[in-house]
Amino acid sequence: MTSEEMTQLLQAHIPLCQFMQLSCTKLDGFNIETQAPLTPNINMHGTGFAGSLYALAVATGWALVHNRITLAGIVGQLVVKEATIHYKRPVTEHISLQSSLDANLKDEEIELQLANEKRATFPIIVSIFSNGKKRGYLEADYVIVRR
Amino acid sequence: MTSEEMTQLLQAHIPLCQFMQLSCTKLDGFNIETQAPLTPNINMHGTGFAGSLYALAVATGWALVHNRITLAGIVGQLVVKEATIHYKRPVTEHISLQSSLDANLKDEEIELQLANEKRATFPIIVSIFSNGKKRGYLEADYVIVRR
Repeated sequence: MTSEEMTQLLQAHIPLCQFMQLSCTKLDGFNIETQAPLTPNINMHGTGFAGSLYALAVATGWALVHNRITLAGIVGQLVVKEATIHYKRPVTEHISLQSSLDANLKDEEIELQLANEKRATFPIIVSIFSNGKKRGYLEADYVIVRR
Repeated sequence: MTSEEMTQLLQAHIPLCQFMQLSCTKLDGFNIETQAPLTPNINMHGTGFAGSLYALAVATGWALVHNRITLAGIVGQLVVKEATIHYKRPVTEHISLQSSLDANLKDEEIELQLANEKRATFPIIVSIFSNGKKRGYLEADYVIVRR
């Protein structure tokens, strides 16, 4: 999937992603970069709304794992089970996000875990940047479930 | 502040809250209830988008603490520092949220903490319901900072 196709997938199927203007700017099997303007994601202090920052980050992590398993031809439903977000500094400009997967994790290992346990877990960290500085990060556990 | 005034405050100043149609249905110094329709908050599976559920919950917790400190006449900036959300079951209908503050926490204790440490922390749990069942919950640490 190209980054343009991922932007289209997110915005067409998740109304909040369209409203937040989340777009994917870089995507491969192990890395993703996304961004969004501040305006639709602002709070009453004129900085990034905590809820927007989380929603942008959790969608970015989902997109990364979705693309990874799609490329590997793995079938299953992808959900997020639990996530913790850390806010370090206010977001005052355009928002960009970045996440990567462990490049050593092989398709066969994921398939084996799914075959044995009916689920495979992807712990993901999504970093949130604005104005060239890291502003916070999300730690999220995504799970592929095979029924 | 009435629940109608809180709905107005959230929707007028946080674009995402307006888009999610978050409304406050009950509010006093120690309790809040909010709700939102599923349609603007849906994902590609037709269930509640993880990002929306978080954003609704973090705004609900913010509103509860904001009202509490406003009633107490406490001055300071209210921010969320860290939050963990647990998703237990898919949200398939209208969303309702509920949170309460410790009724034993006195205004004087908050003021004392602010005077001594320049900050006071409110650990809050927001429960997320749909179709009469609890679907998940948010644990968030809100902090009032006095500069």
